[in-house]
Amino acid sequence: MKALVAGGAGFIGSHLIDSLLNEGYQVVCIDNFYNGIKTNISHLANNNNFIFYEQDICDYDSLSEIFKIEKFDSVFHLAANSDIQASAKNPLIEYRNTYTTTFNLLECMRIYNVKKLFFSSTSAVYGDKENITLTEDTTSLNPISYYGAAKLGSEALISAYSHMNHFSSLIFRFPNVIGPRLTHGVIFDFIKKLGENPNNLEILGNGMQTKPYMHVLDLINCILFFKGKVPKGVSIYNVGVESKTSVKRIADIVCNELGLSDVHYSFTGGKAGWEGDVPFFSYNLEKIHKAGWYASMSSDEAVERTVKEVIHCKQ
Amino acid sequence: MKALVAGGAGFIGSHLIDSLLNEGYQVVCIDNFYNGIKTNISHLANNNNFIFYEQDICDYDSLSEIFKIEKFDSVFHLAANSDIQASAKNPLIEYRNTYTTTFNLLECMRIYNVKKLFFSSTSAVYGDKENITLTEDTTSLNPISYYGAAKLGSEALISAYSHMNHFSSLIFRFPNVIGPRLTHGVIFDFIKKLGENPNNLEILGNGMQTKPYMHVLDLINCILFFKGKVPKGVSIYNVGVESKTSVKRIADIVCNELGLSDVHYSFTGGKAGWEGDVPFFSYNLEKIHKAGWYASMSSDEAVERTVKEVIHCKQ
Repeated sequence: MKALVAGGAGFIGSHLIDSLLNEGYQVVCIDNFYNGIKTNISHLANNNNFIFYEQDICDYDSLSEIFKIEKFDSVFHLAANSDIQASAKNPLIEYRNTYTTTFNLLECMRIYNVKKLFFSSTSAVYGDKENITLTEDTTSLNPISYYGAAKLGSEALISAYSHMNHFSSLIFRFPNVIGPRLTHGVIFDFIKKLGENPNNLEILGNGMQTKPYMHVLDLINCILFFKGKVPKGVSIYNVGVESKTSVKRIADIVCNELGLSDVHYSFTGGKAGWEGDVPFFSYNLEKIHKAGWYASMSSDEAVERTVKEVIHCKQ
Repeated sequence: MKALVAGGAGFIGSHLIDSLLNEGYQVVCIDNFYNGIKTNISHLANNNNFIFYEQDICDYDSLSEIFKIEKFDSVFHLAANSDIQASAKNPLIEYRNTYTTTFNLLECMRIYNVKKLFFSSTSAVYGDKENITLTEDTTSLNPISYYGAAKLGSEALISAYSHMNHFSSLIFRFPNVIGPRLTHGVIFDFIKKLGENPNNLEILGNGMQTKPYMHVLDLINCILFFKGKVPKGVSIYNVGVESKTSVKRIADIVCNELGLSDVHYSFTGGKAGWEGDVPFFSYNLEKIHKAGWYASMSSDEAVERTVKEVIHCKQ
C-alpha cells in the first residue's frame, strides 16, 4: 500500500508518517516547509519505504507529475496553514495553503483515479456557537476565522468530489491537538515567553478560554483505527476528548513544570485570545464513541504530558 | 451611492444593474464575458451613471486597482460560473470563476474598507436532501456538484470576512432563476433543441425532476426589498416560490408556445438530468416571508412567461 501524506513534515503529518511506516505502508511525503520542519522527518532519510518531495502543493503541474509517477492508493491530506494568527492578518495564506492545496489534491485524485482520502478538518468550521455542544449535524456553520472558512470550503469540495468520483473520504474535525513537535498554540507560546522572561507571562484574552486538548498520539491512533473502514461517500467525525482545560490552567501547568513560582500573569483581556479565536467549545462525541473509538488521555493529561515533552524536547 | 456589480453582464447581474440605475445608483460593472454577454449591457453605453470594466476578477491586482479608483459603497457579487454541466467536466472553472472571484472581492473589500455585500448563493449548497424541505438551518450541507461546493466555500469565506471586518452581508440562496437574457438551463435548451429539430425533443433524465422556478424580475425585486435593511454580520435567506414545475411540464409549455404538437419526447433516463444535478428540492420560505417579501409569480407562471419572453426575444 502506497500512501501520500501531504504536509507530512508538519506536526501531525510527521507523527502519522511514523505510524504508517510502522504499519508497513510505503509513504510518500510532500511538504514545502512552509509550516513543516526538516527535523520532523530527518530520521526517515534512510528508510526505504519513505520518499520525500520538497514541493508546494499549490503548484498543480508539479503535484500532478508526482501523482503520475507514484500511483498512490490513498491520500492523507494534512497540508494546511497551521498559524491561524498569521492568516488573520493575511487571508491569502488560507486561500493558498489550506484551500488551494485541497483543490489540487482532489483534482489529482480525480485525474489519477485515487479513491481514498483522509482529511484533517477542524472545530473552527462551526464558528463560535458559545454554549452549544457541537455534533457533526450542528446547523449553520459560520466560521469566524479565515482558517475555519478555508477548511469548511475544503470540506465542501470533498463532498462534491466524493459524490462525482465515488471517493471514500474520512473527515476528522480536530480539536486543539498537542504533543511533541508542536510549533504553534498556547503551550508553545507560554514555554517560549517564559524562556525569555521567567517573571512575567502575558496571557492573550482573560485566560478563561476553555477547550478540549487532544494528544497527537491519540489522534494518530484514531486515524489508524478508522483506516480501512471508510465507506463510499463522506464520513465526518468530531474527534476529541470530553474534558477541557482553561488557558489559565495551562499557564499554571507550564510554570509548575518549569519550576517557576510567583510568575506574574498579565492578561490582555477580552473573552477571545485574538480576533477569530473561538474561546469555548465542546464536542458531542457520541458518533465516534459508537464507532468504537475513545481517547486514552483526558485534556489535562494531554496538556501535562505535552508540557513535559516540549520542555524536555522529546521529539 | 456607488455600487459594484461583479458579473454584471450576466443574466441576473444585468437585470440588477437596470434596476439599480432606476433607483438612482451609480453602477460600476466588472465582467470578463466568460458567461456574460455584451448585448446585455449595450443599452447602457451612454448612461452617465454606468461605468464598465472588461476584467477577469481572478486577476487580483487589476481588481484592486478598480477598487482604489472607484471607492464603492457596496458590492453585489454575481460573478460565478453559470454553466454547471461545463464545470462537472472541468472543476477548475468553479475554483476560478466561483471561489476565487469571491476571495478576491472580499479581499478588496477588506483592504478598501467596503462594508456592504450582496452574494448570490444557491440551493446547490444543500446537496441532494431528497424529501427534506430545506430551511436556512438544514444540517449537513453536502454539495454534490463542484458548483455547489464553490458556492458553499464562498459562503464560508463571507462568514469569516464579515466577522473579522464587520461587514453587513446578505446571502440569497437562489432556486432556478429564469427570464429574459437566459443563457443556460432547461428552458433555453428545449427552445434551442426544438429549433434544430421540431419533431423530437431529447429530455435529460426521466423528466420527473421537479423544482421551483423563479422569474428574474421577482428576484431583483427581492434584492431591492432587502437593500438598506441588512444588519451587521451575515444574513442568509432561501429565496424562491412555493410551487414547483416538472421538466416534463416545461417541455409541454415550450412545445405549446412554439405551436408544436406531436413532438416525440425521448428521455435519457435516470432521476437526475446529469451527474451532480439535484432532481428535487423544495424550500421552506418562512424566514423570507416573515421579513415581508413574497414572490409575485408562481413557478408555472414564471416558466410560461419566460418561454414567451425567450421565444419572442424580449430582452
